[in-house]
Order: sequence, then C-alpha cells, then structure tokens
Amino acid sequence: MSDREDRQVLVVGTGLIGTSIGLALSAAGSQVWLSDRDPKACKVASERGAGDPLAGDAKPSLVVIAVPPRSVPVVAAEYLTLFPEATVTDAASVKTMPLTRLAEIAPNQLDRFVGGHPMAGREVAGPQAGRSDLFEDRLWVITPSESNEPATVDDVRWLARTCGSLVVELTPVEHDRAVALTSHVPQLLASVLAAQLTDADSGDVAVSGQGLRDVTRLADSVPELWAEILASNAPDVLAVLRRVTAELQQVAESLERVAQADYNRELPADFAPVREVLERGNQGRNALPDKHGGAAHDYDVIPVVVDDKPGELARLFAAAGEADVNLEDVRIEHTVGRLRAIIELDVDPTASPRLRKLLQESGWQIRG
Amino acid sequence: MSDREDRQVLVVGTGLIGTSIGLALSAAGSQVWLSDRDPKACKVASERGAGDPLAGDAKPSLVVIAVPPRSVPVVAAEYLTLFPEATVTDAASVKTMPLTRLAEIAPNQLDRFVGGHPMAGREVAGPQAGRSDLFEDRLWVITPSESNEPATVDDVRWLARTCGSLVVELTPVEHDRAVALTSHVPQLLASVLAAQLTDADSGDVAVSGQGLRDVTRLADSVPELWAEILASNAPDVLAVLRRVTAELQQVAESLERVAQADYNRELPADFAPVREVLERGNQGRNALPDKHGGAAHDYDVIPVVVDDKPGELARLFAAAGEADVNLEDVRIEHTVGRLRAIIELDVDPTASPRLRKLLQESGWQIRG
Repeated sequence: MSDREDRQVLVVGTGLIGTSIGLALSAAGSQVWLSDRDPKACKVASERGAGDPLAGDAKPSLVVIAVPPRSVPVVAAEYLTLFPEATVTDAASVKTMPLTRLAEIAPNQLDRFVGGHPMAGREVAGPQAGRSDLFEDRLWVITPSESNEPATVDDVRWLARTCGSLVVELTPVEHDRAVALTSHVPQLLASVLAAQLTDADSGDVAVSGQGLRDVTRLADSVPELWAEILASNAPDVLAVLRRVTAELQQVAESLERVAQADYNRELPADFAPVREVLERGNQGRNALPDKHGGAAHDYDVIPVVVDDKPGELARLFAAAGEADVNLEDVRIEHTVGRLRAIIELDVDPTASPRLRKLLQESGWQIRG
Repeated sequence: MSDREDRQVLVVGTGLIGTSIGLALSAAGSQVWLSDRDPKACKVASERGAGDPLAGDAKPSLVVIAVPPRSVPVVAAEYLTLFPEATVTDAASVKTMPLTRLAEIAPNQLDRFVGGHPMAGREVAGPQAGRSDLFEDRLWVITPSESNEPATVDDVRWLARTCGSLVVELTPVEHDRAVALTSHVPQLLASVLAAQLTDADSGDVAVSGQGLRDVTRLADSVPELWAEILASNAPDVLAVLRRVTAELQQVAESLERVAQADYNRELPADFAPVREVLERGNQGRNALPDKHGGAAHDYDVIPVVVDDKPGELARLFAAAGEADVNLEDVRIEHTVGRLRAIIELDVDPTASPRLRKLLQESGWQIRG
C-alpha cells in the first residue's frame, strides 16, 4: 500500500521458501526484514543476503508468512496484530484449512490477509538451499477474497511478480481441490509404491527400468513437510484418494475373477473394468497441459545411440543445432551394464524428417 | 541345436516384438521364417526384411512364439507338435500361467520349451513399428526348467544375445513376482491416476507440473495388450496391489482422523502412518538400481537457464563438452507460458564444480 520502490517487507520463517523470497526481493531493491523462531536460521538467511534480522524500527507494509501450513493461522494472526497497517500473505501449499482457522482467531483482520502459494520447491530444505530465482517462471497462486481491499491484493501480486512468477488467481477451495488431484495424491501414490521396494528382494528390483523410476520420482520428497501438507488438505486429498482406491478395488476384483477363470485365449468379459481404466488413463494423459499452457502436443521421438562418455552429447546437439530444429524435450535412457545410451529427442513432426536426415548424414545411429 | 551359423528360426506372430526379432536375426544372417494368423501383418513384416513367409520346406530348429500372453500355450503346443525337433520359446511378459497351461495341453513336450521375456517395448504396436535394435542393451529374461536339455536353453540364450540383449535367468515364479512389483502395479497406478484427470476441471489440471507428468507417463501404454498382461499375472499383481491398497487405506484412515481433529500446529499422533509411508518411500527410491546395475548414485544437479529456441541446447552442450564432464542425465523443465527452459544436468559430484565454473565463464545463467 506504500510506495513500492522503497517498500519494506518482513519475511517470517527463513526456510527454503522464506529465504528464497528474501533473496529475490533484496535483489529487486526492497528493504527486507527477516524473522524466525530459530535465530540461527535467521542469521544464515541474513548472511546469505536475504535481508536484515527484524529490528524495532521496522515498518513493513507487507508480511510474508513462510512457515509450515499448520503454523500459518497462529503466526499470521500474530503479525496482523503486530503490524495493523500491513498486508499479510502466506506461502503454504494448502489454503482452505489455514484460512478457516485464521478466521476463527482473527475474524476482524481478514481483510488484510491474502493467501498465496508459490508453486516451486526443491528436495532440499533450509536457508542454505534458498535461491533468488526459485520462483522465476513458476506459477504463484493467490487466493484473494471479497473482503480484501484491491490495494491489498495488489501488494501480493507485486510480491509474486517481483519474484518472477506468473500470478494465477483461484479461490482457496479451487486451489485445494486442484493440488489434491495434481500434486498431493500423486505424491502419496509415488511414496506408497516406492515403499513397497523396501521389503522387496533385490533381484526383483534389479529387473526394473525407467518406468518405475518415473512413477516413483516424487517419493524423494521431504517426509516432515509432506505429512503436514497432506494433513492440512485432508478433505480434498481424501476425496481423490477414495476415487483412486475405489478404482483399484474394482481392478482387484476383476483380477480375482480372472485368476479363478480358465486360462484361455479370450479374456473373461468381467475384465472390462481393467481395460477401461487403461483406456481412460490414455485419455487422462491427453488432458495434461503442454509446456505453453495449451493442450498436449504430439511430438516425434528420434532415438539416437550415443556413447556414454564426455563430449558425445555436445557432438549430438551441435549436429541438431545445425538443423535449426527446436528440441521440445530430451531424455537419456541408459542401458544396463553397457557404456552407451539412447538419447530420445522430441521434436515437432514437421521438423522431424529434416533432423533425422541431417543426423544420419552426420553419422549418428538412429534407432528404428 | 543345429549349427547356429545357418540356423533356421521361425517367428510366430509378426507384431512389434516378432517383427523386431525377425529383423535382428535376419541382420545377423539367420534364415528367418514368419507366420501370423493375419497374412497382411506377415506380408508387412516380410517386406520390411524380417524374414520369409513360412514355406513347406522350412526346417526351423528354433521357434519364437511372439503372440499375446493368453495365446502362448495353444500356439506353443501347436508348434511343438509341428516341429518335433525344434526348441520353442516365447516373448510374453508373463511366465507362470502360460507355462502351467502349456503343461496341461502338451505335458510330454515341455522339455523343448524355454520361456523368454525380452524387456523392451514401444508405445506403438504392429509390424510397421518393428526395429532390428529394439532389444539391444536390454534385459532378456529366460526361465529354463530342470526338464530342459542344456542345448535347448543354449538356443534361447543365443536368440537373446543375437538380438543384442543381456540374458538374465530366473524361475517363472521369480520373474512374475518381480514384474508385478516393478512393472505391472506401477502401470496400474499410473493409469488409475491419469484416469482421474479425464473428469477433472481443466483449470485444476492447469496447475499441474512435471511431477504429475512423471507419475502418469506409463499411462500412455496400449490398453489391449496391458489388459492381457495384467490378467495373465493376476495372482502376483493382486499380491502387490493388496499391499498398496492396504497402505492407501491406512493413509485414508489417518487423513479422516486428522480432518476431524482441531487444526493446530501439532499433527495428531495417529498421523504417524502417513509420515512412515513417506519415509519408506525415500528408502525405496534408494533401493533402485542405477544405470550400470549397481546401487543408485547421488549426482549433483546443475540447473541452467536456456532460451527455448533452436541451437540453444547445442550451445550449452558444446560448452559442457569442453569441460570433459560426462552428463549422467539431462532433464528439460519447461516453464509455463514463457519461452525459456531450465536444463537440469546431472553430473558426478567430483566433476560438478569444474562444469559450473566453465558454464558460468561462458556466460550461462546457473540457478541457485
């Protein structure tokens, strides 16, 4: 609400997210104050250039509460009271339950609170992991309500944009439903599947490939933080999880019937639910947005054999660069026990023949 | 069992797998015969160079049954009878149930049957998709039994190696248990999760990122084939699926309890099962083999900002090549709505500082 050029921002909680916000705002020229209940974390963030430890003469017009979701209501209420002119926002990946609780404990100050969720993270935590560009080109969901003054919402939009993010406005209910489906339940499925590997025979796991790696990648996430996120979005996560488990139950019933049926060429008719799930899985993949926010593209895949040694990728991409073809995606598929790899290049179908021809002329081995 | 240089091989079923085997063996100099109940598929495979349509004077010493799993027993029995001297193998991704059924219908000929599973595939099907190098550097599981003559097993090892694969010997039971865990249940979870996206609000799906993409990638698979694979391995798939659904059920119960509890800073104690699943998920990821078959590596990740236009990757990899550093993996993370991307380079920690320095000196923007 003050002039933004010399605005003062207070960041409460100097973990990965808070420190990254402090670094981005400091780099943009704002006066940033830092606070954390762990003075050491605050000191580390400050020494890294994220801002100055909160001092008595601080007059922040914007307070960013970057604490775990379940601490947001209490901490936000505290700072709404401490700075009665300031806009207060948060950075938690769940919006409804913290806001409901805040409405109970600070009902008269909600007009100055606008929820926020910068959609970026790393698998590492703490102020040491903070990066000034963590939010660049990421979505930053904000959840304004009708009780908010326009200038208050503008403060939070300014915060997101100054950190380099694209602002998306949703209601808290829309936000929580969306992330339950696209982030929280995927996290649970990845973790539960990866958990099965802990008890498995190492020989069983040895026959795994890239597919298992992809499905379980999210299982690398930090357990403490994710337990809190899942708990804070329990109703929405439950709604999606119940649909998933109901479908898995149907699949299990079909499998039971087929296990008891004679093993013939024809699948029993009551195996149809499994085929339908597989077909709907195909359709669901087509519903994913592509990188520019539109519907998914079909790219041509060019699989190229390269030796697994320094410089080979450089040679390949130099050759691809000559064709003036944009690479939409690249995957390295390593082969077990051998020192070469398949590089899969995704390119626009109209450009694909040109690139194939040029690579072949340059002596590259293209599979298929 | 004959001299392998001039051996005759019959491939029954000229889909993706059969055609690829025919192409590989033909390229290696074998006389390959082809058969398919669809004469058109056989003709396409033959015209592509996979072999000659089966003729009356054919004398195959090895028959490869490359038909869907549920057709394997009947077709294998047919060819065991037709060529009473030949070794017969298959290429199905399930081993126990087809073998059990074959033992019922051709009990006296099992000594000449050795199960096989070349672990490669594509998302596309049919003889047009066949590639001579589909199996190169892939695992090819074979499942010999004590009733097999050593020479019979050698025939199948020869087949796998001639196609460029690494041979792994397992019992049918070991094989089916391993693929249920590492391939079949991951397929189901990916498909069921992706299926949820079909009914979702497009706005909900719009806030998704790379995580959802990775978890659901397997959902692109061909439904017909996968319905049969899952049905053919029903008991083992069920065993893993029941463990997964039991854990998801526990998670759901924890979520129900926490949804009813007061929303405070502290998580209720009975939310521990969720935290444990997340922790075991971390451990399970560490159990995955790395690309050379050993335990997983920790690589340093170097995130580099590049413009999303032709030639930029070439410039980056040329710079990386100068550092003489081997890239273990590469991921392109596109940003929504903007024309630049983050390229994540995975490199050995000992080489990482050198590469970072060189990239920075060359003017590349490294994040963090």
